[in-house]
Amino acid sequence: MRAVFHQTLEDVQGRLVEIADLVAVAMDKATRAFSSSDVGLAEEVIAEDHIIDEKCLDLDELTIEILARQQPVARDLRIVVAALRMSASLERMGDIAEHIAQLTRMRFPERAIPKGLKGTFRKMGELDVEVARRLADLLRTQDLSIADDIRNGDDALDELHLSVFEKVLSDSWRGEAAATVDATLASRYHERFADHAVSVAKKVIYLATGEWEVPTDAVPVVVDPTITRD
Amino acid sequence: MRAVFHQTLEDVQGRLVEIADLVAVAMDKATRAFSSSDVGLAEEVIAEDHIIDEKCLDLDELTIEILARQQPVARDLRIVVAALRMSASLERMGDIAEHIAQLTRMRFPERAIPKGLKGTFRKMGELDVEVARRLADLLRTQDLSIADDIRNGDDALDELHLSVFEKVLSDSWRGEAAATVDATLASRYHERFADHAVSVAKKVIYLATGEWEVPTDAVPVVVDPTITRD
Repeated sequence: MRAVFHQTLEDVQGRLVEIADLVAVAMDKATRAFSSSDVGLAEEVIAEDHIIDEKCLDLDELTIEILARQQPVARDLRIVVAALRMSASLERMGDIAEHIAQLTRMRFPERAIPKGLKGTFRKMGELDVEVARRLADLLRTQDLSIADDIRNGDDALDELHLSVFEKVLSDSWRGEAAATVDATLASRYHERFADHAVSVAKKVIYLATGEWEVPTDAVPVVVDPTITRD
Repeated sequence: MRAVFHQTLEDVQGRLVEIADLVAVAMDKATRAFSSSDVGLAEEVIAEDHIIDEKCLDLDELTIEILARQQPVARDLRIVVAALRMSASLERMGDIAEHIAQLTRMRFPERAIPKGLKGTFRKMGELDVEVARRLADLLRTQDLSIADDIRNGDDALDELHLSVFEKVLSDSWRGEAAATVDATLASRYHERFADHAVSVAKKVIYLATGEWEVPTDAVPVVVDPTITRD
C-alpha cells in the first residue's frame, strides 16, 4: 500500500512539475509578445491556456481519487491537500500569462507597453519567467534553497512594481490615461504572478519542514497598498 | 458514523456561512469608508481582516481533520474538498475588502474616489455588499435560485467596471495619473470580489446538481481584458 501510495505521490509531483513548466513557457511567450507587440505569439498563449486549465482539473480529479481510494493520513494527507492548492495557484499563474497576452492583443497594432516603461516591463517579464522556471525546478528537485531565488525574484518584482507607479505619478509622465491604465494593470499582473509562485514555494517548504518560511521585510507601500500580499 | 459525519458537514457549512457574513460586513465597512473617506472605518477593516484569515485557516484544518478521521468518499468527499476551495475564495474576498480600505487610508485626508466616479463606485460598493450577503444566504439556505442574484450582481459589476474605463479614457476625463491609477485598481478590486462570489456559488450548485452552471454571455471586452474570468 505504501509503495503504491508513493508511486501515486510521484505522479502528483510529476504533474505539478509539468504544469509549472507549461506556465513558464506561457509566461515566456506572453512577456515576449507584450514587449514586441507580437500578436501571433499573444494569440498562441490565449489559445493554449485551456491546456493548463485542463491539466489542473485532471490533477484535482486525481487528488480527489487519491483521497477516496487511498485515504491518506498525517503528512501524506497534507501533501495531497497541498497539491490541490498548488494546482489552483498554478492555474491562476497561467491565467495571468493569458491576461498579459490579452493586453497585447487588445492594443495591437499599437504597443501595449507605455513609452518610458519598456525597460521596466522587459525586466519584469524576465523575472517572472525566471521565477516560474525556478518554481518548476523546486517542484522537480525539492531543493529548498531554490525557494530563496523565487523569493528574491518576487522582491525584485515588488520593487519594479513600485517603480512603475513612481514613474506614472512623476511630473515627467506624459502618458495618456490609456497608458496609465495599461501600466497599472500590466504591472499588477506581473507582480501577482510572482506572489502565486511564492505561495506555492511556501507550501513546498511547509511540507518539507513543517514550518512556514519567515516572511522577509515588507516592502514599503508607495502606491499599490497590496503588493506584499500573496 | 453517517450521523456523526452529517453533523460535521453541518459544522463546515456553519463556518462557511459565518465567514461569508464576516466578508459581507468587511465589504460594507470598506466601501462605506471608501466613499466617505472614513479612515477610522478603513482602519477597522484592515485590523479585522486577520479574523477572516484565521477562521478560514481553522476551517481548512477542520476539513483536513475530517479527511483524516472520517475518510469520506463520493459526494461527501467532494463537499469537503469544495469547502477547502470555498474557504480560499472567501479569504480572498476578505483581502479585497482590505485592499479597498488600504486605498482609502493611503489617500486620506484626500478622497480615494476620483472626481466624476463617485456615483459609480457607490453603486459598485452596494452591489458587492449585496453579492456577499446573498452568498451568505446561499450557503445558509442552499436555495439555488439565490445564485441568480449573485450572477446578476456580478454582471452589473462587470458593466460598471467597463464604464469606469470608458470614463477615464474619455475626452472629458480631467483626472491626474494618480486618479487614473486609483480608479483602475479600485474598479478591478470591486469587480474581482464578485468573481470570487460567483466561483463559490458555482461550487454550491455543482454539489447540489452535479452540473456547472452554464455561463451567461461574456461581457464584451473594452479595456480590461480579464473581466469575465473568475
